[in-house]
Amino acid sequence: MIRVGVITISDRGYRGEREDTSGEVIQEMVRRMGAEVEFSTVVPDEQERIKEVLIQGADKMGLDLIVTTGGTGVSPRDVTPEATREVIEREIPGFAEAMRIMGVKKTPHAMISRAVCGVRGRTLIVNLPGSPKAVQEGLEVILTAIPHTIAKIQGDPRECGE
Amino acid sequence: MIRVGVITISDRGYRGEREDTSGEVIQEMVRRMGAEVEFSTVVPDEQERIKEVLIQGADKMGLDLIVTTGGTGVSPRDVTPEATREVIEREIPGFAEAMRIMGVKKTPHAMISRAVCGVRGRTLIVNLPGSPKAVQEGLEVILTAIPHTIAKIQGDPRECGE
Amino acid sequence: MIRVGVITISDRGYRGEREDTSGEVIQEMVRRMGAEVEFSTVVPDEQERIKEVLIQGADKMGLDLIVTTGGTGVSPRDVTPEATREVIEREIPGFAEAMRIMGVKKTPHAMISRAVCGVRGRTLIVNLPGSPKAVQEGLEVILTAIPHTIAKIQGDPRECGE
Repeated sequence: MIRVGVITISDRGYRGEREDTSGEVIQEMVRRMGAEVEFSTVVPDEQERIKEVLIQGADKMGLDLIVTTGGTGVSPRDVTPEATREVIEREIPGFAEAMRIMGVKKTPHAMISRAVCGVRGRTLIVNLPGSPKAVQEGLEVILTAIPHTIAKIQGDPRECGE
Repeated sequence: MIRVGVITISDRGYRGEREDTSGEVIQEMVRRMGAEVEFSTVVPDEQERIKEVLIQGADKMGLDLIVTTGGTGVSPRDVTPEATREVIEREIPGFAEAMRIMGVKKTPHAMISRAVCGVRGRTLIVNLPGSPKAVQEGLEVILTAIPHTIAKIQGDPRECGE
Repeated sequence: MIRVGVITISDRGYRGEREDTSGEVIQEMVRRMGAEVEFSTVVPDEQERIKEVLIQGADKMGLDLIVTTGGTGVSPRDVTPEATREVIEREIPGFAEAMRIMGVKKTPHAMISRAVCGVRGRTLIVNLPGSPKAVQEGLEVILTAIPHTIAKIQGDPRECGE
């Protein structure tokens, strides 16, 4: 079973000024695909804090998938992509690309997301934007590719297309 | 009001061997969206010159938006993406991506553009290709996202989606 | 005439455990566009070996185009994008982007490809995924843009759009 961590990145959420609806949307969606949410937390928009919790989820907990929500935009406090890029070993540009392209069909604002997706060790890390709607639409786009991607990251030797 | 700089990057334009139609198309389009063109110039395809004028527009003039045209291809003299990447602090990949994807629907040559978009301080910097047609089609794709992006860059604290 | 090298990157292919169908598909397709295949080889998924053969094709043989197949995924042995990025001087993101976007319309797995395309000297280098189907579909997307791109890389001074 795919073991998942969900990280909500939001100054307001961390201070308790905003409900974590986006984190809940992610939990629901990954459970529906048969995965298990082992860990969920809210951290402020601080690069070092984000890095720490990503590393903890990947290296200490050995999660298969970490999904973040928030901090992917262009506001001065948005540093999720920077934190993510610092901890991943390989980027998978097509995930963020696909989410933006599908998003732009609904709203041009989707092109602002600087979300980064990539691999650290055996863990797939995926950034999603902050709004519950963007989370749902974005995750929808990549969900069916996730189990195969994790299997490959963790060394499934079958040929693609087999 | 959004204050804009327009930079045409072209050896031929700089030598007066080519009319700056693309620069004029940009000026017209950003004015139509209610922005003010404060600055426009033509520079040759030289990385240091491009960097200088980008930095001047961003740091000294404090422009909200700088739009460049030209030098985004793969010819030996095309160095606009390199110059831009050196001056921006954060890249916004979705802007160039969206322009290419829409462009490719019209001509496969659109996929050659190496245009870079990103942020320096409070300034949004956008590369467009050199041809007037590519400029119009590209700018059309991102135009509606620009005011919101600039507001966010400059610290508008409202949640996206509010 | 466009002079092409084809490199199949596959541990299994190198050990003779798998037929090089993907390499053959590439050879057929580039010949049909009027290009000449001067060189084709199979190398294992080893970064240094891939780099060597790319450099040989570009610098020693002066090929116009090198197409690779395989090693673009997220398996631990997939290192083609890393090897390619190390040898290119300029990336052309729109090529890989366009292939992924068209691919995703057929299968969500297409978004996993980390293929890199770019320029080394006068040589265009293009990564394709490993499966014959992905190779055909991907190459189809970029084929019509290739002659123009090579002409530009090698210094054709005509304006784009002329």
